[in-house]
Amino acid sequence: MSWFNNISMNSYHLFNQIRIKKSFLCVGLDTEFEKIPESIRSVEQPQLEFNRGIIHATHSQVIAYKLNTAFYEARGADGWKEMEQTVALIRSVDPDIMVIADAKRGDIGNTSEMYARAFFDRMNVDAVTVSPYMGYDSISAFLKRNDRWVIILAVTSNKSAEDFQFLKVNDGEETLYEKVLLTSKKWGTADNIIYVAGATRSEQILQIRKHIPDHFLLVPGIGAQGGSLEEVAGYGINSRCGLIINSSRAIIFADHSQNFARTAHEKAVEIQQQMESILKNHKLI
Amino acid sequence: MSWFNNISMNSYHLFNQIRIKKSFLCVGLDTEFEKIPESIRSVEQPQLEFNRGIIHATHSQVIAYKLNTAFYEARGADGWKEMEQTVALIRSVDPDIMVIADAKRGDIGNTSEMYARAFFDRMNVDAVTVSPYMGYDSISAFLKRNDRWVIILAVTSNKSAEDFQFLKVNDGEETLYEKVLLTSKKWGTADNIIYVAGATRSEQILQIRKHIPDHFLLVPGIGAQGGSLEEVAGYGINSRCGLIINSSRAIIFADHSQNFARTAHEKAVEIQQQMESILKNHKLI
Repeated sequence: MSWFNNISMNSYHLFNQIRIKKSFLCVGLDTEFEKIPESIRSVEQPQLEFNRGIIHATHSQVIAYKLNTAFYEARGADGWKEMEQTVALIRSVDPDIMVIADAKRGDIGNTSEMYARAFFDRMNVDAVTVSPYMGYDSISAFLKRNDRWVIILAVTSNKSAEDFQFLKVNDGEETLYEKVLLTSKKWGTADNIIYVAGATRSEQILQIRKHIPDHFLLVPGIGAQGGSLEEVAGYGINSRCGLIINSSRAIIFADHSQNFARTAHEKAVEIQQQMESILKNHKLI
Repeated sequence: MSWFNNISMNSYHLFNQIRIKKSFLCVGLDTEFEKIPESIRSVEQPQLEFNRGIIHATHSQVIAYKLNTAFYEARGADGWKEMEQTVALIRSVDPDIMVIADAKRGDIGNTSEMYARAFFDRMNVDAVTVSPYMGYDSISAFLKRNDRWVIILAVTSNKSAEDFQFLKVNDGEETLYEKVLLTSKKWGTADNIIYVAGATRSEQILQIRKHIPDHFLLVPGIGAQGGSLEEVAGYGINSRCGLIINSSRAIIFADHSQNFARTAHEKAVEIQQQMESILKNHKLI
């Protein structure tokens, strides 16, 4: 792995992890302070301690963890510190697990370079989610790092994704999200670009695959946001699996009691077993 | 002011500040660690100390400060803390100055609510920049706060803004950025939505004004990024001024020596005087 022995975490390595873990599950550490068990809310580092429980309980079932920065920023500098410490904790538990900062950043060139430093150099994550609205030079700073990934928003899982992502552009030939795919795929390769493809619109995944057969897709929206794993896999799986399916609340907040970690483990195992069966059906393991 | 006496900082109050200060200048605290004077780099809170110098030297000339989160996140939790402390410092120096978090956030509804908490409740800024790509429900959480502002990216100042913002949508009737204006202006009012309009394309400001005659525009790209103040004002000024012109590097990094604050003061005065003359020419003061 990149942070470990200078071999980049390309799509081959990612697929290798999927075969080893028999899973393409990403657990979203959307650690909302108000939702964690009361007993943990009162410790000094509540988000880190909650995450520690989740990580120890689920790391054997996952190939990635995704930290949404909003839930940590809501606690200010303390939250930011616990986000950094969570990344370090994941590294110490299993350095082969991909760590994603779900930050949805993007700014002019010199500023995006600062975000690349913040997330890749300082926080040491493997991948950052970015919004495409500002175009190439808002994303190129992230793409310059050969051993890291950029995850570009294509179709998001919220209802209002329709407001702009599904607008017809270029004389009605394609939608905005398709234009984003077709334009941005030239900026990098399937070894450094991943796309967000919301599972609440699983039929869209078929359309996305027409444009980018080889890229990995990060699929949010399984579980609490709706969306069926079987359906998404049917539409989106490719010869290297090509899917990273995220589940956040349905795993980490399945149980609000002291037993949250054990329940999270059970939920993660359940999904991992479904994924193992899907991978076998597609002859990928 | 909202944080002070429960009167919201609406466009009337903003215009009032412009008349009092005879300025519509926003100084961008893009406090890149490597660019601050060496003597300050070695103190315990280098970004805060540099900002203190700039704020004390420029607060009489400005109506707003804009903190770009990237430059603070590049220093991790320490940087985040100094960003929070900088906001508190601005409040203590002049509670009538608008504070903008240039964060370019935007996520699904419950996550945007967390960003609203992070920036409005925790950091206590007046305004946050957001990217429109994810649509209404990614922005509505910010708009629910009556006494705060959302600043939506319309036309950005970077070269690659062309990649998507200028695409023709809806059978070629309008560009994407125009569609963003026309759709999003219905989500709020000229008292809680501001738009980013990059000054490197000053002729676009005329086009933007056709769609949103009343809204304030946050205009980056004066100074280091090019763009003429006179030209922008000519195209964009309205009956309440309607312009917040940002300058970052051209003021805060005009002088890399120990005298940075004095030079920043001189640069800010220079711009304020140009603005005073523009406001007089337009009979706004």
